[in-house]
Amino acid sequence: MKYGIAFFPDKKIQDIANSYRKRYDPHYALIPPHVTLKEAFEMDDEGLSQANSHLEKVSREIAPFLIHFPKLSTFHPTNNVIYIAVEETEAIKSLHEKINSGVLFHERRYAYIPHLTIGQEMPEDELHDVYGSLRMKRFELSTWVDRFHLMYQLENKSWTIYQTYLLRGSSE
Amino acid sequence: MKYGIAFFPDKKIQDIANSYRKRYDPHYALIPPHVTLKEAFEMDDEGLSQANSHLEKVSREIAPFLIHFPKLSTFHPTNNVIYIAVEETEAIKSLHEKINSGVLFHERRYAYIPHLTIGQEMPEDELHDVYGSLRMKRFELSTWVDRFHLMYQLENKSWTIYQTYLLRGSSE
Repeated sequence: MKYGIAFFPDKKIQDIANSYRKRYDPHYALIPPHVTLKEAFEMDDEGLSQANSHLEKVSREIAPFLIHFPKLSTFHPTNNVIYIAVEETEAIKSLHEKINSGVLFHERRYAYIPHLTIGQEMPEDELHDVYGSLRMKRFELSTWVDRFHLMYQLENKSWTIYQTYLLRGSSE
Repeated sequence: MKYGIAFFPDKKIQDIANSYRKRYDPHYALIPPHVTLKEAFEMDDEGLSQANSHLEKVSREIAPFLIHFPKLSTFHPTNNVIYIAVEETEAIKSLHEKINSGVLFHERRYAYIPHLTIGQEMPEDELHDVYGSLRMKRFELSTWVDRFHLMYQLENKSWTIYQTYLLRGSSE
């Protein structure tokens, strides 16, 4: 079964993201607006049990943290994706690295860039139009990250939640 | 904000349900196949905090249980809904009743009938066609219920998970 790990920003931010995703993201109906912490990976039932223990442990080690979404960015020309950038803090990098360790360690093809996708698989000219008109826009958005979710993918490519992990570490 | 509480059956059952929902359920893209434990209700942030404590307590009192999905049924003529019936056991009734108590008590318009919707808002003739051709079909499906989820609704009517509650009661 295919699993993935992500968190959802505040409802307000999800609503803003959806106003773009509706037009520019073919995954709009498959999953709510999210910030991926671990890309899709295959796992069997035994792996799931080990992953659960691992994620429980991670959730006890990290304290809730605030993140900012300052502006739009794009992965073009590597990928025709437009996203709301997530400020790259130590906290989110640490959460990502701890999740992607131990039994859940996989080599990544790209460096981790936390982001909230609002458009993907976009035709070249549409991407340039949309990014050109939105790139100067400032997003004064922030959200508390106090939990993350392990999800699995159904046959129709949509995602169902398996479990929430609450961040319970103490802040320094 | 609008919240709801449900559990998701095994992936296999969700995939079967989606094969029907894709054609017959306009909510197909808004939420994965689910069994509602508490219908949508309004709650503010203070209510959320109280609800969370309440649901934590409920999850400690109920042990995981197995449920069967024996056959199709319909709420017609009250509602043009077709669903996979959920065997009405004491365990699921108790889970429903405990959730719908204390700070989360609301009067219900109908008696609670646990079900997995596969079609709704169906035109009368389509409902009769589909139900007529499927009603004799036996579903030999069952799933362990070992968790439930509190969800909230976005502006586009889709649902995002807020939190998972693992059933941790001891079985008798």
